[in-house]
Amino acid sequence: MCKTRVLSAPGAKKPFEKTTIERRELRPDDVLIDIHYSGICHSDIHSAYDEWGGGIFPMVPGHEIAGIVAAVGSEVTQFAVGDRVGVGCFVDSCGACEYCLMGEEQYCTKGVVQTYNSLDYDGNPTYGGYSQKIVVTERFVVRIPEGLELSEASPLLCAGITTYSPLKHWNAGPGKKVAILGMGGLGHLAIQYAHALGAEVTVLSRSMGKKDEARSFGADDYFSTSDPDTFKTLAGRFDLILNTVSANLDVDAYLSLLRVDGTLVNVGAPGKPDQYNVFSLIMGRRSIAGSLVGGIRETQEMLEFSAEHGIAPKIEVIRADQVDEAYERVLRSDVRYRFVIDIATL
Amino acid sequence: MCKTRVLSAPGAKKPFEKTTIERRELRPDDVLIDIHYSGICHSDIHSAYDEWGGGIFPMVPGHEIAGIVAAVGSEVTQFAVGDRVGVGCFVDSCGACEYCLMGEEQYCTKGVVQTYNSLDYDGNPTYGGYSQKIVVTERFVVRIPEGLELSEASPLLCAGITTYSPLKHWNAGPGKKVAILGMGGLGHLAIQYAHALGAEVTVLSRSMGKKDEARSFGADDYFSTSDPDTFKTLAGRFDLILNTVSANLDVDAYLSLLRVDGTLVNVGAPGKPDQYNVFSLIMGRRSIAGSLVGGIRETQEMLEFSAEHGIAPKIEVIRADQVDEAYERVLRSDVRYRFVIDIATL
Repeated sequence: MCKTRVLSAPGAKKPFEKTTIERRELRPDDVLIDIHYSGICHSDIHSAYDEWGGGIFPMVPGHEIAGIVAAVGSEVTQFAVGDRVGVGCFVDSCGACEYCLMGEEQYCTKGVVQTYNSLDYDGNPTYGGYSQKIVVTERFVVRIPEGLELSEASPLLCAGITTYSPLKHWNAGPGKKVAILGMGGLGHLAIQYAHALGAEVTVLSRSMGKKDEARSFGADDYFSTSDPDTFKTLAGRFDLILNTVSANLDVDAYLSLLRVDGTLVNVGAPGKPDQYNVFSLIMGRRSIAGSLVGGIRETQEMLEFSAEHGIAPKIEVIRADQVDEAYERVLRSDVRYRFVIDIATL
Repeated sequence: MCKTRVLSAPGAKKPFEKTTIERRELRPDDVLIDIHYSGICHSDIHSAYDEWGGGIFPMVPGHEIAGIVAAVGSEVTQFAVGDRVGVGCFVDSCGACEYCLMGEEQYCTKGVVQTYNSLDYDGNPTYGGYSQKIVVTERFVVRIPEGLELSEASPLLCAGITTYSPLKHWNAGPGKKVAILGMGGLGHLAIQYAHALGAEVTVLSRSMGKKDEARSFGADDYFSTSDPDTFKTLAGRFDLILNTVSANLDVDAYLSLLRVDGTLVNVGAPGKPDQYNVFSLIMGRRSIAGSLVGGIRETQEMLEFSAEHGIAPKIEVIRADQVDEAYERVLRSDVRYRFVIDIATL
């Protein structure tokens, strides 16, 4: 066992406190990581505020973890002390079901173990990346390529793979017209991936305020969703709309922007159900879909793709004592585009 | 011009009257068809009752037309007098857009001309198959293979292609688990197609009343949707659910029956919007989709596939003066499984 300092939420919507927890003794296939940076994901806020229910408190959020290997178990073969590594949303899965065998651990039929606010297969709560150290099974550790800063790599472990995976799955690429709905933590990465994959990229954002920045990320076009003309101009245009917004949408309006066989893919989930008119799907063989993060193999691929194409999030590095304030700023959309905690300040 | 006897609805929800209309003079690419049988589709009732709005009255419904070629225009090359032919839901499209060129005329960007209750490109109302004769552009006429009775072929022109096309599009076949939701006019054909395509077929129906008949159509399994245990037993089982029911569904409950990457495809549309929780899609990369009939090339393929595999609807042939009563029986689900009007009685 080793003690580690953490930022812990003692209860729902309670301010974070600095405290210590124990990490488990290294098992033969475990990796001990000194965390350098931990990104703040919107789902950290949903969890710490217990908005989805079932929160396990005290809670140590954080599933965008970047650091350096500090020790390895006796049977670890892929990593050595000093390696630059990352951990994303999951820390264990059954490893034997068809989805695990396919490398789609996020859909493990036994139920994947989440990095925090989850119970591991021994029934112990998991604690995430707002922490100096973490112990993770080798199978859920990825290598951060030299071309990526650790601070910038951390948000890729959730926001990056969450957008890269559906773009790959629904074949964003040359000849395809892709819309990215919402330009926040996820959206600003999605633009870069869709562009690097060769698609024609249009950003759909509430205001026109981020237009220039969208172009710098590789967007070919930019429209305001507050302008009703947008929905006329873009009718029937897209093969794929990647919806990175977690609020309820006028789904039919967005479906009308799809070509025949087009798909509206959601990666964020609003608290209330969405509505749609079935005719919007039938008249164009359109689909509404969802996608959950991505598997470990694909996460490694995404990191290498990011390094190769110079893709990185725009981040604001904060101190550990700024996390409460950062949560409030995320809720006001006052961040361009991702907060990352400098764990050295913990 | 030629006069033809028709069954015409003088207004919304008004009883049908026998009357006459004129069909247009044969154009060089036109085919004149002596209609022998015309199926009754649920959408005929929606239209004749003006439930979708915009009904053009007097209205002659019918888009499941089977008959014999009586005359051809000077440039017709594919058909000759005496040929057994059919006409489905559409009688014209632009012929030049990308979807027409792909053979997916139903998604024509100019807007496909429907067989009835529509305006043709000259602005004239179209009148459907409850009629002794019809004139249709050669491009929208299909050949009925010798192996199919004309009476049985007629429902295939809508109910058949509406189910065959999505089963093909979403790859129903060996190794795939397909559920057919609803066992009516569409559903009882969908079972036969999915089985003939090699899929493992499960029927989901309100009651257990049609179980034996489902097996005779090729179903491997049958469950009642009124039994809550059904949703536990079948959780995560299907690659594809083809929803042939036009009523609003508990969409999340049906999504829970899908495997990862599974799709719920709707071919009927309820009057009110459906609701879904985005999490139901995300947790399994699932999709909700819709499909509209099928193109002309695929309709021809479906007829040949039906003849080859001995697939036919179960029909109840009625006289022209029984149509009002038949509509009422359809609304009470009192038909196994499709009414077909014997046009000789008109």
